[in-house]
Amino acid sequence: MKQFWVLFLIINFLINVPAALADEGMWTYDNLPLSQWKQRYNFEPTKEWIDKVRLASVKIVGSSGGFVSPNGLIVTNHHVASSIIAQLSTKERDLMKTGFYARTQGEELKAQDAEATVLISYENMTERVHGAVKSGASNAEAAGQRSVVIAAAEKDSSQKTGLKCEVISMYSGGEYWLYCFKRYTDIRLVMAPEEQAAFFGGDFDNFTFPRHDLDFTFLRAYENGKPARTPNYFKWSETGPKENEFVVATGFPGSTARLMTVAQLAYAREHGNPLLRQVWETRRKALEDYSKLGAEQFRQASPGMRSFANALKRLTGQQDGLLNPRMFAKKEAEEKELREKLAQKPELQKLYAPAWENIAKAYTELPAMSKRLSFSSIGSSRLVSIASQIVNYHIETAKPNERRYPEYRDSRLDAFRTSVLSPAPIYVEMEGAALTAWLEEAVKVLGANDPFVRAALGDANASEVARRAVHETKLIDPAARKGLIEGPADAIAKSTDPMIMLARRVEPVLRELRAWNERHISDVEAANGTKIAQARFAAYGRSIPPDANSNLRISYGSVKGYEEDTTLVPFKTTFFGLYDRALSFDEASPYNLASSLKTRRDKIDLSTPLNFVYTADTIGGNSGSPVINRNAELVGLNFDSNLQKLSNRYWYIDENEGSRAVAVHSAGILEALRKVYDAGDLANELTGK
Amino acid sequence: MKQFWVLFLIINFLINVPAALADEGMWTYDNLPLSQWKQRYNFEPTKEWIDKVRLASVKIVGSSGGFVSPNGLIVTNHHVASSIIAQLSTKERDLMKTGFYARTQGEELKAQDAEATVLISYENMTERVHGAVKSGASNAEAAGQRSVVIAAAEKDSSQKTGLKCEVISMYSGGEYWLYCFKRYTDIRLVMAPEEQAAFFGGDFDNFTFPRHDLDFTFLRAYENGKPARTPNYFKWSETGPKENEFVVATGFPGSTARLMTVAQLAYAREHGNPLLRQVWETRRKALEDYSKLGAEQFRQASPGMRSFANALKRLTGQQDGLLNPRMFAKKEAEEKELREKLAQKPELQKLYAPAWENIAKAYTELPAMSKRLSFSSIGSSRLVSIASQIVNYHIETAKPNERRYPEYRDSRLDAFRTSVLSPAPIYVEMEGAALTAWLEEAVKVLGANDPFVRAALGDANASEVARRAVHETKLIDPAARKGLIEGPADAIAKSTDPMIMLARRVEPVLRELRAWNERHISDVEAANGTKIAQARFAAYGRSIPPDANSNLRISYGSVKGYEEDTTLVPFKTTFFGLYDRALSFDEASPYNLASSLKTRRDKIDLSTPLNFVYTADTIGGNSGSPVINRNAELVGLNFDSNLQKLSNRYWYIDENEGSRAVAVHSAGILEALRKVYDAGDLANELTGK
Repeated sequence: MKQFWVLFLIINFLINVPAALADEGMWTYDNLPLSQWKQRYNFEPTKEWIDKVRLASVKIVGSSGGFVSPNGLIVTNHHVASSIIAQLSTKERDLMKTGFYARTQGEELKAQDAEATVLISYENMTERVHGAVKSGASNAEAAGQRSVVIAAAEKDSSQKTGLKCEVISMYSGGEYWLYCFKRYTDIRLVMAPEEQAAFFGGDFDNFTFPRHDLDFTFLRAYENGKPARTPNYFKWSETGPKENEFVVATGFPGSTARLMTVAQLAYAREHGNPLLRQVWETRRKALEDYSKLGAEQFRQASPGMRSFANALKRLTGQQDGLLNPRMFAKKEAEEKELREKLAQKPELQKLYAPAWENIAKAYTELPAMSKRLSFSSIGSSRLVSIASQIVNYHIETAKPNERRYPEYRDSRLDAFRTSVLSPAPIYVEMEGAALTAWLEEAVKVLGANDPFVRAALGDANASEVARRAVHETKLIDPAARKGLIEGPADAIAKSTDPMIMLARRVEPVLRELRAWNERHISDVEAANGTKIAQARFAAYGRSIPPDANSNLRISYGSVKGYEEDTTLVPFKTTFFGLYDRALSFDEASPYNLASSLKTRRDKIDLSTPLNFVYTADTIGGNSGSPVINRNAELVGLNFDSNLQKLSNRYWYIDENEGSRAVAVHSAGILEALRKVYDAGDLANELTGK
Repeated sequence: MKQFWVLFLIINFLINVPAALADEGMWTYDNLPLSQWKQRYNFEPTKEWIDKVRLASVKIVGSSGGFVSPNGLIVTNHHVASSIIAQLSTKERDLMKTGFYARTQGEELKAQDAEATVLISYENMTERVHGAVKSGASNAEAAGQRSVVIAAAEKDSSQKTGLKCEVISMYSGGEYWLYCFKRYTDIRLVMAPEEQAAFFGGDFDNFTFPRHDLDFTFLRAYENGKPARTPNYFKWSETGPKENEFVVATGFPGSTARLMTVAQLAYAREHGNPLLRQVWETRRKALEDYSKLGAEQFRQASPGMRSFANALKRLTGQQDGLLNPRMFAKKEAEEKELREKLAQKPELQKLYAPAWENIAKAYTELPAMSKRLSFSSIGSSRLVSIASQIVNYHIETAKPNERRYPEYRDSRLDAFRTSVLSPAPIYVEMEGAALTAWLEEAVKVLGANDPFVRAALGDANASEVARRAVHETKLIDPAARKGLIEGPADAIAKSTDPMIMLARRVEPVLRELRAWNERHISDVEAANGTKIAQARFAAYGRSIPPDANSNLRISYGSVKGYEEDTTLVPFKTTFFGLYDRALSFDEASPYNLASSLKTRRDKIDLSTPLNFVYTADTIGGNSGSPVINRNAELVGLNFDSNLQKLSNRYWYIDENEGSRAVAVHSAGILEALRKVYDAGDLANELTGK
């Protein structure tokens, strides 16, 4: 069957519907696909609709969420909020296992380092940033000249508005935008189901459909000790979407690479992705080994293991896409088409054509450096990462604002402090195990004479260095970190804290590598990526949205099942399906039922929809995105994609190939709140009753 | 994901477990895989076990079933019994739609032409048949010499035992067996669910898993107006199988082609299967067009449409298998290995080696004839088929027994009469539509000057010929057929019945083609197939069972889920899953619920298992096979295979590739009988309560 089907898909693909007809794109709010909406869905939002949706969209723990009441209530995925929930858990009180519901606002639990942001304003800075680059500047000089105007704009507007303002590069520097965000730093846990209800089916069912997951959590933003007033919020739909209904997902897709050149994609395929796999596998394996030591160790390691398993499964799908000759050929054809269009206009040709070769040439240098760039890193332990940030803080803040690493510019220092001073629990034994495994792998990959390895280990071995560093450091105490940040710079140089010493030793090597990468790769990409973007604008205008970069986007599509093999996959699942899948496996893990679902089975209307699929163009980071209808009512909560969609980092995959986003159904969440979790008050807050 | 996965499967396949470890084979009862059972499942059946299972296995409507009470009660699939159920239906009383349950034996409905048979005895005839061939005989002479001894043995043993005795060729003539069957010709309908409950999900879900079908029907064999006494029957298991439990399927697999030569398989791939598709598509399309004329026409055409849809889906899977280079290469390697083994023994080499070339050479002649062989046929209408059988009956019975076409030998005439004299309803308009469409396609494919087309149509067009034949024939009346069979042979020659005239006109063409095929293909295959079989015996003994040929076989394996894409498919489904799938599609057809399932939902224990998968080697014809445990208790009723298994006509597909047979669960059937169909008495007859 498969072969006929694949052939059908290929033919179908070659005679594909024109781009304008596909539900393609993660669009910025300044450039919404209004004509597609009107043409295909007869939908014409007002300016009020657009503003309201933007202001109700919340970035939370690096992913997405939305306000769902006027009192700061935020909905997101359980797997997005799980770091918050895990941090609020202890050996004795494991909220991941038991779930949580605050019956009163007084019972809501304050997260230890969560931050929620909302995009308040945006402004096109492209001319100012491009204008700052002097004619004849080298790539590195141009980067420096851009930094000056960017850092100044960020600082000025942050001071003026009291918001967190950042200049965002879009289209590899083809555009620059000043985005200003409101930050909420007092975030409290309101309600979370058991992880087993939220992540039923585990890594097996992740990235598949049909799904049966209550992957939601409710948080609340507070200001000045009171629930934040959030007049812009999504009304909760009690019925959810109908089949074929138009829907929009608003959220923060993390990263796509659709506008990369063929040379960049080929590098990802041959070197980048395999190395990334090795890095993640090393870190996943360290956690897994640690988790086997006991139940408490398992609890500590679980969120990390889940996160790496998820990332690895997604990476496999992405790499499969790059390895698929038909898919890759499409990218080559796209690039060829653009370059041929360019060739028709000699003046553009002269200006932009060399950009592809320049990038390709830069990338020829990368393979020789890529192992050093990947494995010379201290990201495997939170303590060493804190130490490294403190060391860098003092180095960078000694410089003028515009000369710093961007993450240490004045406009970003509030976020830096929130992160480094978080009182979230750190598990010393787990840190030691992760750091040891990481350093051992670095020795294996880079060799004992590598500069990073020499700096990190000296004459000791990995486990000695790691053990000493994690056990003897004072950084476990946020007050100690605060002292080092607020103290004099030379206290760092003199510190005998073994973790600070480790960070200090490796820092010169890391800086040298970062500089190499900027000079040889990033600056070349910025200069030439800008040219390619301008060539693309000349050919296609702004009809192609920029690659996702963790900023607010809108995707759209319709709620729709699909064909798979010879049969049909329905557009939704029901609670019946959850019990079927659990009992079909005789409840063998990960198909065991959370205890509340077990005891409340007879109370639930099992025909209530649980999850559904829709055609919008989403990617990692869209987890927790509100899925809304044309009345801006929340009908679902995005939490996953299916396998057919996994390689969409590199290209849009048409809905006819079965590519779908997966959401929790709004009616399923209400049913669970009311019948499973006795959270009627919360349900009433959502429905305004 | 797919690519990594496929690669894994390929690697997995190349380092496959040795043949002896796979659950391979449809075994004859004279050569059961006892050592495999003992070694892999620690199962050593007694002779009593084996005899009882054989005598409880029933061939019904060309497929499989089993006795499930001492009073002649037979269980089979709804889709096997559907021809019986449809024949007992009328426009006013559509049992396919409503289902049926006879609350008393008096209400059981007698089928119009059903026959059930049981294999009572078998005897090896190989030496006698081979011994009958005189040294130096040509292929055609050898065929004639074999016919003499075969026809005599069939006639003698039929007369001696009162059973229906047939000589069966196994291994392309490598072995001959005399099989004697008890025939039951009074078969009554006891209970059938609605077709919508039996075939929920329709052609989409056919050949997939998870499934949710109540695909069962109960019949009863009568003798002398009373329920037959059937002391050998399967006890009904109230609990069904556990995961990983050893099970056996006993039934009548129709046809495999695993021992074909590469030349024969290449012909199937290049010519045979595409032509078969065209033939079936033509016939399916004719029924579909007819079904659109109205509800009653739809009712009449439904069983035929379903049957062709099923056959076409299976054929697609088989052809995909042949088109798969990895699969086909395995056949080439198998053949090469056998021929290399042969080459090591010069005496065998001389005797057997030319067989492959002889068959390959014969097949080079086939493509030029294949369209004529495929489209010179009158199988599209039941009336014209009856007419043709009557015409042939007189031609053949005028000859000595051993010279006749095998189907007109004395030993087969009882079955011939049952079939031709069946009072089952014939829908004249549907016959006309089917015959017209068929003849029109024949003209298109063969051309107006083709001998068959000229004989069939003369100067008229297809629809005139068809209309006159179906409307003016007297053959609609079984008494008229009886008169022609029992009347003198020259009544046929003189008949002016337009259907008899049509059959008479085309008969010489059909005979000429049949003779060509025997001389150029079948006789060559028989002579050389026998040699290849003997070569295979010399190399491997009887460790490879013969190809399936609609005779009784045992398959075995274990009840087991499998991996698909990145996730797990459970070994069973529950009633929860049925309701989930229906409601997930908002009950859009073919996912609408049968009305009884709708009204009885709250009465059912929804956690009851409904369908399950197991690893046994089965194929079309195994529909309705009892799936039994080591105590010979019926734990399930085979009704389907999944897509992964579809190409197993040509090769065994290992369970690690996800290949599975699908069965209705014995507990699910009991739950449906008791809670959905108020058939408690029938349930009690099964459980002996």
